[in-house]
Amino acid sequence: MAGNSYGTLYKVTTFGESHGEALGGIIDGCPPGIELDIEAIQYEMSRRKPGQSAIVTQRKEDDQVQFLSGIFEGKTTGTPIGFIIPNTNQKSDDYSHIKDAYRPSHADYVYEQKYGLRDYRGGGRSSARETASRVVAGAVAKQVLKDIKINAFVSSVGHIFIDKPYQDLDFSKTESNPVRCPDEASAQKMEEYIREIRKQGDTVGGTITCVLQNVPIGLGEPVFDKLHAELGKAMLSINAVKGFEYGSGFCVAKMKGSEHNDLYNIDGTTKSNLSGGIQGGISNGMDIYFRVAFKPVATIMQKQETIDNQGNVVEMMGKGRHDPCVVPRAVPIVEAMAAIVLADFYLLNKTYK
Amino acid sequence: MAGNSYGTLYKVTTFGESHGEALGGIIDGCPPGIELDIEAIQYEMSRRKPGQSAIVTQRKEDDQVQFLSGIFEGKTTGTPIGFIIPNTNQKSDDYSHIKDAYRPSHADYVYEQKYGLRDYRGGGRSSARETASRVVAGAVAKQVLKDIKINAFVSSVGHIFIDKPYQDLDFSKTESNPVRCPDEASAQKMEEYIREIRKQGDTVGGTITCVLQNVPIGLGEPVFDKLHAELGKAMLSINAVKGFEYGSGFCVAKMKGSEHNDLYNIDGTTKSNLSGGIQGGISNGMDIYFRVAFKPVATIMQKQETIDNQGNVVEMMGKGRHDPCVVPRAVPIVEAMAAIVLADFYLLNKTYK
Amino acid sequence: MAGNSYGTLYKVTTFGESHGEALGGIIDGCPPGIELDIEAIQYEMSRRKPGQSAIVTQRKEDDQVQFLSGIFEGKTTGTPIGFIIPNTNQKSDDYSHIKDAYRPSHADYVYEQKYGLRDYRGGGRSSARETASRVVAGAVAKQVLKDIKINAFVSSVGHIFIDKPYQDLDFSKTESNPVRCPDEASAQKMEEYIREIRKQGDTVGGTITCVLQNVPIGLGEPVFDKLHAELGKAMLSINAVKGFEYGSGFCVAKMKGSEHNDLYNIDGTTKSNLSGGIQGGISNGMDIYFRVAFKPVATIMQKQETIDNQGNVVEMMGKGRHDPCVVPRAVPIVEAMAAIVLADFYLLNKTYK
Amino acid sequence: MAGNSYGTLYKVTTFGESHGEALGGIIDGCPPGIELDIEAIQYEMSRRKPGQSAIVTQRKEDDQVQFLSGIFEGKTTGTPIGFIIPNTNQKSDDYSHIKDAYRPSHADYVYEQKYGLRDYRGGGRSSARETASRVVAGAVAKQVLKDIKINAFVSSVGHIFIDKPYQDLDFSKTESNPVRCPDEASAQKMEEYIREIRKQGDTVGGTITCVLQNVPIGLGEPVFDKLHAELGKAMLSINAVKGFEYGSGFCVAKMKGSEHNDLYNIDGTTKSNLSGGIQGGISNGMDIYFRVAFKPVATIMQKQETIDNQGNVVEMMGKGRHDPCVVPRAVPIVEAMAAIVLADFYLLNKTYK
Repeated sequence: MAGNSYGTLYKVTTFGESHGEALGGIIDGCPPGIELDIEAIQYEMSRRKPGQSAIVTQRKEDDQVQFLSGIFEGKTTGTPIGFIIPNTNQKSDDYSHIKDAYRPSHADYVYEQKYGLRDYRGGGRSSARETASRVVAGAVAKQVLKDIKINAFVSSVGHIFIDKPYQDLDFSKTESNPVRCPDEASAQKMEEYIREIRKQGDTVGGTITCVLQNVPIGLGEPVFDKLHAELGKAMLSINAVKGFEYGSGFCVAKMKGSEHNDLYNIDGTTKSNLSGGIQGGISNGMDIYFRVAFKPVATIMQKQETIDNQGNVVEMMGKGRHDPCVVPRAVPIVEAMAAIVLADFYLLNKTYK
Repeated sequence: MAGNSYGTLYKVTTFGESHGEALGGIIDGCPPGIELDIEAIQYEMSRRKPGQSAIVTQRKEDDQVQFLSGIFEGKTTGTPIGFIIPNTNQKSDDYSHIKDAYRPSHADYVYEQKYGLRDYRGGGRSSARETASRVVAGAVAKQVLKDIKINAFVSSVGHIFIDKPYQDLDFSKTESNPVRCPDEASAQKMEEYIREIRKQGDTVGGTITCVLQNVPIGLGEPVFDKLHAELGKAMLSINAVKGFEYGSGFCVAKMKGSEHNDLYNIDGTTKSNLSGGIQGGISNGMDIYFRVAFKPVATIMQKQETIDNQGNVVEMMGKGRHDPCVVPRAVPIVEAMAAIVLADFYLLNKTYK
Repeated sequence: MAGNSYGTLYKVTTFGESHGEALGGIIDGCPPGIELDIEAIQYEMSRRKPGQSAIVTQRKEDDQVQFLSGIFEGKTTGTPIGFIIPNTNQKSDDYSHIKDAYRPSHADYVYEQKYGLRDYRGGGRSSARETASRVVAGAVAKQVLKDIKINAFVSSVGHIFIDKPYQDLDFSKTESNPVRCPDEASAQKMEEYIREIRKQGDTVGGTITCVLQNVPIGLGEPVFDKLHAELGKAMLSINAVKGFEYGSGFCVAKMKGSEHNDLYNIDGTTKSNLSGGIQGGISNGMDIYFRVAFKPVATIMQKQETIDNQGNVVEMMGKGRHDPCVVPRAVPIVEAMAAIVLADFYLLNKTYK
Repeated sequence: MAGNSYGTLYKVTTFGESHGEALGGIIDGCPPGIELDIEAIQYEMSRRKPGQSAIVTQRKEDDQVQFLSGIFEGKTTGTPIGFIIPNTNQKSDDYSHIKDAYRPSHADYVYEQKYGLRDYRGGGRSSARETASRVVAGAVAKQVLKDIKINAFVSSVGHIFIDKPYQDLDFSKTESNPVRCPDEASAQKMEEYIREIRKQGDTVGGTITCVLQNVPIGLGEPVFDKLHAELGKAMLSINAVKGFEYGSGFCVAKMKGSEHNDLYNIDGTTKSNLSGGIQGGISNGMDIYFRVAFKPVATIMQKQETIDNQGNVVEMMGKGRHDPCVVPRAVPIVEAMAAIVLADFYLLNKTYK
């Protein structure tokens, strides 16, 4: 399996299965001399971890990150930062029922076809637990980018959505509710809906919106490595993501040029920002905002027919502790991937000076 | 400027500005022994080139590709394939009015901020003319992937869209009309709408849908290099693209797990295909389909206020020959980028055997 | 710091300082389904570790590798293999004397100039302890390449050298003596010389020769990624290496074409093998052999003048437990790097089939 | 074939066979705003080209480089620099005798084994003509590195060598003789020797020494991407190179630590420079110097037995115009590759500021 690295200059490589000894990763290319706030990193981990509230999975995972290198007397040294997150609370016997059968809309079948075998415990490498390492690398990236504000939040769950522009939201409220929706009225409705879905033994999709503010002009590279292309890849690489749009997004397809163009102010800022802070693949100093669509979790507490590796039809039902809706816990993951992308382009942009 | 390469094993690197001597590129990693059908490549070029019909730009560009290496006695040799596309019909004087001023929603301003200077003729490197090189590389990739069918088509222009699933369309009709929409009734409406928009001196956005059929099981790499993440990056790297979704796409955000899961048939195919042919980032042998949103062309034949590099407000109006709607000509570009991504993963997947 | 990854398809990324919590790394791209012999890996670690005999450093390092992922029921799964090697026996106080002063011919000064700070304990990342992670990755690579024989050995220490061609040596004797020289007469002289050097508080250089047998035809890529160019980089990246030559090596500079050309046998093998098994950067099926020069360890048990970070002249003398000659312990490192390079090209070559 | 790119930030990709339409390449990542001296680039081309003097091959190649992009009003724009070098004087019929037979110690056999076919005209991609593109990319890199002095020269031909340290040489004399040896007495002997060798229908090897001066402290990355490791790979990737050593090189193997250590002056410079300007893989501000060994050209004007692709023994004799000794023309190639490596690390080092 290739594909476990992200970035060119701020380069993150991760490893780990959901039921192995540990997950972890290496951040290569982190600039030296940064005083790392370890608590801030652990805080991001706690936002992602299961068991935070009644509407997310009740699995207990400690998700304590241990840094093994690259930090000396509290500062980054410029050498690679190795870290692990031990798997402390995994029960492998929970997963014996999927040893031979392929869960619908999971990666079981394709892993076995591609690799000839799979670590079936909890989905192995395809488990969303993999994203824990991304959150660590993103939390470090945030500290590289001290002046940039990165705010993701849940903008819809099922048919319930925030019907305000992001400018009218108070991001400081995102963490005030278990849904991670800064609009409290919407948050309450979403929470109720998720409880209801869970009672049905079902799951539901949602969207996350992310706003990047104070991004310097000039990040992103033209042609293949446009800033939004890389953000798109980063988001689409997160488990369960099915769509990405930035700025005016899919709505743009119905618009006219005369409506869509962002006219300039005298200082180079723009009067409108349908471009979403990026032109020609390069940040223009305006807010960058994008939206990410997540599918409903495939593991449901209802009986489904499926097949096993002998070609038999078998019946299967989700066991254990799963999220009825993945978006609340995905908020820190979206922020982490955005931070990793920005850190990489930020370093790359220094080579032009 | 970095970012002019795409792919790891089937690696494409391009160069060229709209008004330089030539565009071109290098395909490194093309397998040896492929009998290249040069006419098929030139056919793809003709699909992208301007001046094909009344509803696209009337600029004349010959877009003749010249291969300089990597082919011997009609076959690829495994060595890098270098090619150029001379710029034969560029009028630099057309662009003097934008030498000092920044066109709204174009890359003029950010290029100058990032690089300190820019080739202002026709947008230079940020011109969509850059995509000609992608079409060459994609046309070669299609020949590497002889068994895979790649069909893109215009699925909407402005508010007009095909209201049928792609399974009900006859892709052989895509080239029968200037819009490249295989649903003839929709195609006619779209064409009329584009003519109307052009009369207004305006432009309009649209969407392209792409269907990949007969893709072998196992393409794509888990975690960061998921197949759909790479397809998303590839599409978002095309000029004017604002959004990407695959399978159930953004609709998924409103769905329940019980509705969304694709149940298996006994042979490993699935009864439904909301997953869009990809699970856990790996192709599962079902059709892959995705949708791409394009913004309206920023150059309009109407007066707009903007600023120049002295900080003055100036008035500007599009000159010359521009597309009122970009999607018809973008169809071969979408196919090209899809082919490049698939060729790369196809080669990578061979390393597991 | 960048530069902590090696390889494209068999990709190794490492981290760790000599006195941090642990060293470790990630192997991304190891093929699935390989039954890993963990003892064989640990055996390679024991060849590299300090304290094996009277002529190497008497530091005790356990060098137990712990695999954290990528292996399931004894087989590689194709997912990234994460591993750590805890630092169990480090005494940081040994190094307080070099906190502010720069050891001659060490990396202390340049690290501080480049990064603005350094982890001075035991050389930090610049310590040869870093190579422990390489040995793990190389030991796994050897198991990917079951049919290829990789044999390195000490071919000279100071002025003492083996005066036989490698074809006359019995590689099974390499491990029979602490110098790792398969020619027993030379081994004994080398051992005596190293003991003598150590008594003087001095150190001495040497060379390692490596022979790769049974390499399939076709490994290596022309132009920049020639097989010997990559082997050269891999060897030169090992601490203390100052030179690399393959086949006829530096002697070639004095030879004539009529003497140097390797004429073909009817089966495509060659009558002589001055080419060293590589032509045009591609393996030709003959033995590959190369030679690597190591400098004497810079830390000596004699007083030397040096400077500190305040610009003062200070006197310094090596403390602790250092190798009088590095080549015996470098043998498994040379083999490891050769295996990593071959594994990468081996996988890459599969994409042509 | 992969492996036609070099560098991460200053990234060079090349294409072209000796008898195709043209060679060429793309430089991606060249900083913007550099006033390119095109004549200086063409001058480097003329140093490499055949037919310069009586002791090199009498083939006529114009080697005129044409830049196609990335330059505007005399300055680099930061976009990729595409260039071609048309093949104007190739006679394909010269090569019919090697269509089916494999020249000894050439790449004919391995190319055919690896790729299944080969462009046999003049060696195709394996021809040293490929290095013309490197010289272009290196000549541009030299202009990126205005303050760094890069001087290569012929230090030996056959058994004749300069017996002075490089500090006693006047590099301005390198171009004063056809051998490119700055020591005029040695140059004359070398020239005579090469004439004699040519009369014998034979060829001879040699060495090139290269000195890099005024390199800033801090270039190079520890562990795998050490500055000397990358220089080594770059040199070993040049056709006919068999060995690389830097600083004290292979001699180091006989030295003691007490002799080899470079002691510091109070300003951070060192009293001696056996390290060759690099410590721990990072430049320390002292002169970097290294030596490269070239084999004798494999094509000789004498009869040799070889085999053809039907397994027959055939007799072969070199035809046409070949170099009796490759080192005089390789001097600009060595400089070019050194410049490419330095430019890449120079840009990378900016990311730490």
